[in-house]
Amino acid sequence: MSQNAILAVGSMAFDSVQTPAGKAESVLGGSVNYFSVAASFFAPIRIVGVVGEDFPRSHLQWLSEKRIDVSGVQVVPGKTFHWVGSYDGNMNEAKTLNTSLNVFEHFDPKLASNHVETPYVFLANIDPVLQQSVLNQVRAPKLVACDSMNFWITGKPDEVRKTLSRVDILSINDGEAFLLSGEKQLTRAAAKIMELGPSVIIIKRGEYGAVLFTRTGAFMAPAFLVDRVVDPTGAGDSFAGAFMGYLAEAQASREMATQSPEKWENLLRRAVLAGCVMASFTVEDFSLHRLMRLTTPELVARQNALMKMIQVL
Amino acid sequence: MSQNAILAVGSMAFDSVQTPAGKAESVLGGSVNYFSVAASFFAPIRIVGVVGEDFPRSHLQWLSEKRIDVSGVQVVPGKTFHWVGSYDGNMNEAKTLNTSLNVFEHFDPKLASNHVETPYVFLANIDPVLQQSVLNQVRAPKLVACDSMNFWITGKPDEVRKTLSRVDILSINDGEAFLLSGEKQLTRAAAKIMELGPSVIIIKRGEYGAVLFTRTGAFMAPAFLVDRVVDPTGAGDSFAGAFMGYLAEAQASREMATQSPEKWENLLRRAVLAGCVMASFTVEDFSLHRLMRLTTPELVARQNALMKMIQVL
Repeated sequence: MSQNAILAVGSMAFDSVQTPAGKAESVLGGSVNYFSVAASFFAPIRIVGVVGEDFPRSHLQWLSEKRIDVSGVQVVPGKTFHWVGSYDGNMNEAKTLNTSLNVFEHFDPKLASNHVETPYVFLANIDPVLQQSVLNQVRAPKLVACDSMNFWITGKPDEVRKTLSRVDILSINDGEAFLLSGEKQLTRAAAKIMELGPSVIIIKRGEYGAVLFTRTGAFMAPAFLVDRVVDPTGAGDSFAGAFMGYLAEAQASREMATQSPEKWENLLRRAVLAGCVMASFTVEDFSLHRLMRLTTPELVARQNALMKMIQVL
Repeated sequence: MSQNAILAVGSMAFDSVQTPAGKAESVLGGSVNYFSVAASFFAPIRIVGVVGEDFPRSHLQWLSEKRIDVSGVQVVPGKTFHWVGSYDGNMNEAKTLNTSLNVFEHFDPKLASNHVETPYVFLANIDPVLQQSVLNQVRAPKLVACDSMNFWITGKPDEVRKTLSRVDILSINDGEAFLLSGEKQLTRAAAKIMELGPSVIIIKRGEYGAVLFTRTGAFMAPAFLVDRVVDPTGAGDSFAGAFMGYLAEAQASREMATQSPEKWENLLRRAVLAGCVMASFTVEDFSLHRLMRLTTPELVARQNALMKMIQVL
């Protein structure tokens, strides 16, 4: 069993996206795809998802080459989930034009026996009932993080709360944090959400970066200023992938919060910066294209560049 | 002659403002008022402006008590400049409902002989022709900073460029930077503006903070997360006041950029953070109310808090 493996569950999809920079038809998308490719730079990944028979085998093969275990991907009769959306003036918010759930509608994540002991777990934005089903199957994870969205916060508020009571870390965007907490200010929103369970809240602010809230303070992480945003889709999921990957690589655990709080705080801060850097690559092209050609030296160079942009001596 | 005095020229006004938090009628405003009260926490200030006979003497007296030399304020027959505006959903952008220039329409800044040798000069957002008139009167300042706005960038582009060719530092908001540069991305916008003269560009992003661009790099400064934004008016001018005050207190000069670039860069970064902190107080109440009751211990506490929010060890 790998000491720093991450189990990620979420959607695998085709996306058709239009942005001010152009459009892409039926390209690879889905939260778990973005998450796992991002996380694979830091740790071995096991993904759980469902695709139809139209999903390209070449993609699963490519994921396998990236330390990503795709044995948990169910290939079932029917079509893969298809999302159609656009970004207009505001690149921080997608407009959904159409959602065809297809095989994703009956997704029922079942963990293989060799996956139940994975130490790090990420529950991407799916039905909170399914998120709990995954948590029921894993055995004593060291850290659990999740994401959610307006659709579930409004539609299944009690189930969202049940999930939150069982996770360590919530990664969510600002509008969702306000909706979930009933507050309109980040600090108060984070405090309210902490009462629901997670001791670490990351509030993503699109092109303005992210804010990390822990029991000991707040950390304001800026987004890296990219030359040109082509497509913001997947930025949040790849942020979460690098964040979780960074923590897994360092073999972080929730006990660190009490045993070595300063180390924990700094590790989380560095993980958030890793997330910001990864997201900045994602938005430079459609789909997973930029992440697929991303090299470790490029990643390290931008991590160093971002660090210099926040340093005060 | 004081080694770290700042000469500031700009508007003195009455503002009538409506925000989601409430409204204020004919309260004190104007760029030079916000600037000077903010800067007064760091250095002695000399202001140049014009008011009508309706301007309360008590305010000038109060400014005097704050190390602010108001002998350059012309009191002329007529009414003081009056701005009427509102903020709706977007607290980062004011909607101007009415502007009565009144005595400000014929403002012609004349420096007293004991003011021409002031080492630090701030030209708030006024007609670029007047900004140059002030520069023609001062003698060998150590640092000159200025602000501008869409109205002048569009209406007097050549004059704005003439001003920029003579200043060290430009402080401007993101929309204005895009308009001035013809670029839509911060880094490229800053690079284009640098070609016009200033070697330091600060691009303000409202509630998301500010980005500092120098010849050696970029620094991303977050805004401090206040409990409640009551009125954003004056945030940018008080930002500039604390920024300039911080540099004046440290007796910074443009030569530092070449003589001790690392010291210069760090001084600018700290000055930007001082600006962010000051702006965060300004927005907590209408008019200058919060700044007027701000204490140095409160200021220092928030500066330390913001520093902790960006630190990565």
